[in-house]
Amino acid sequence: MTAEYFNFLSLIGVAFFAISGSLLGHDKDIGGFGVVVVGSVTALGGGTLRDILLNQPVFWIANPDYLYATYGAIFVTVMFIRHLPDVSNYYMLLVDAIGMAIFNVVGIEKALIEGTTMVVALTMGMTTGIFGGLIRDVICREVPLVMREELYSTACFAGGLTYATLFLLDVPYLWCIIGSLLVTVFLRLGALHFGWQPNLFRKRTPKIRD
Amino acid sequence: MTAEYFNFLSLIGVAFFAISGSLLGHDKDIGGFGVVVVGSVTALGGGTLRDILLNQPVFWIANPDYLYATYGAIFVTVMFIRHLPDVSNYYMLLVDAIGMAIFNVVGIEKALIEGTTMVVALTMGMTTGIFGGLIRDVICREVPLVMREELYSTACFAGGLTYATLFLLDVPYLWCIIGSLLVTVFLRLGALHFGWQPNLFRKRTPKIRD
Amino acid sequence: MTAEYFNFLSLIGVAFFAISGSLLGHDKDIGGFGVVVVGSVTALGGGTLRDILLNQPVFWIANPDYLYATYGAIFVTVMFIRHLPDVSNYYMLLVDAIGMAIFNVVGIEKALIEGTTMVVALTMGMTTGIFGGLIRDVICREVPLVMREELYSTACFAGGLTYATLFLLDVPYLWCIIGSLLVTVFLRLGALHFGWQPNLFRKRTPKIRD
Repeated sequence: MTAEYFNFLSLIGVAFFAISGSLLGHDKDIGGFGVVVVGSVTALGGGTLRDILLNQPVFWIANPDYLYATYGAIFVTVMFIRHLPDVSNYYMLLVDAIGMAIFNVVGIEKALIEGTTMVVALTMGMTTGIFGGLIRDVICREVPLVMREELYSTACFAGGLTYATLFLLDVPYLWCIIGSLLVTVFLRLGALHFGWQPNLFRKRTPKIRD
Repeated sequence: MTAEYFNFLSLIGVAFFAISGSLLGHDKDIGGFGVVVVGSVTALGGGTLRDILLNQPVFWIANPDYLYATYGAIFVTVMFIRHLPDVSNYYMLLVDAIGMAIFNVVGIEKALIEGTTMVVALTMGMTTGIFGGLIRDVICREVPLVMREELYSTACFAGGLTYATLFLLDVPYLWCIIGSLLVTVFLRLGALHFGWQPNLFRKRTPKIRD
Repeated sequence: MTAEYFNFLSLIGVAFFAISGSLLGHDKDIGGFGVVVVGSVTALGGGTLRDILLNQPVFWIANPDYLYATYGAIFVTVMFIRHLPDVSNYYMLLVDAIGMAIFNVVGIEKALIEGTTMVVALTMGMTTGIFGGLIRDVICREVPLVMREELYSTACFAGGLTYATLFLLDVPYLWCIIGSLLVTVFLRLGALHFGWQPNLFRKRTPKIRD
């Protein structure tokens, strides 16, 4: 059952990130297959890094379903939005939030399955959740969301902490996942709609720039 | 014979990408060994990612000839162009096109040898062909060619499709390679000289920007 | 004894790079855990790439002490500098120089232990020393130090050459390390304080830009 959940969640996460990459790539007016490149890198980047770090077979080589999900999601997205007026950036951020929440959980789980400690697993979750979007932003020459959005990596980490807490309280597996997803998406939505900002780690003294 | 072709093609591809990296790095007026860093990353980046993804020994560690080819090509390029006036960007694009065509084929073949399906192999070819140049552009803070050039990843993919088609038609090995190389280079030259653009995946509705 | 030195040096290098990443991330006014992300990527990026290239277990997964050193260094740095006025960029460059010098040596050694030739080992040292800072600069959208600083990769390479020379002269292990560290840091300090520039590989003809 674990493996089933795992594959299902991963497929959905891959599709969401593929959509976010296509939306940004399309918005940048990249011609031809460039959109496919950006979408694929976004969808597969985080999980690929996770598998390489854990010394596991890369997921989309071991199981090409992930490639079909990626290419399918990119194709449908592009076919759909090319007939629409400009799509608001809000949808990209929304799709990215859901993808990040899912990949965070998937990354934590895969690390725990490989027998790492919780600290390593949380790091792996953030890596998996953030890296794909980071490459997307670097390729598209956007300020990475990690830097621009106040409540981005913090939301990812909060979702990870939720998973870890529920996990250590022996809450059933499925609820660990649902709890983590809800916390991350909830915080991201709060940031997008109400401008929530964490005031962590910030300068206490006013900053003077010339 | 396969392995011989393979090594020979790889060496040439590495040298071409090393030249393209040195040309761009030198044009950016990077001092000292920075040019060597940019050139090496360009030459070795795509193949390194390919080998990591396929869980193979990294090619330039297994066989240092590739390092010598890289450093040699960088050295000769720099020694040569430093005595010339500004080199046109056209040469960089030309060299990049040939390197991409070669790495595409090499990536597809290496994946097929490892027993992947054709979809994974085509993805691996594009990864190998595009990734080195992508890192080069990111380090040099250029708009990546994948985004800027209309017919870039599309040319790479067309070369891959050519290889796949000839391969499935049982055309002899050497002609699969030659066909793929010709298609990719031909399309890139067409884009450079005649401004060919694919009109795939583009907005159908006019785009309004404020 | 080798392994002890190795771990000790690596921990210090990781901490220094974590500080350099936090300094730059904080200077960029990234909110929340973004600073932690930038700091971690800087601290762990180079060594992670080295281990992946050498097909070794990734160091911070095999030994979570490195994660604690990273997070500890980031936390202390941020807690400290948030109560200070703007920290000069000089400290970031200084910390980066020491981190690079250490990672260079560590990378060379780890490669030699794995039985690579000296050319591969020097390449691996530069990879380990430069890559973390390079990702830091790309994420923070700074011109990478490799491109901006005249004597950066050259200082790294000079440190590597020093190590190789002393190593081939059968100088005791510890002195190879110390010699390499001193040369790299000395050259970087010279560049920072006195503007030393290597005049390698540069254009001989004047460059005309319109």
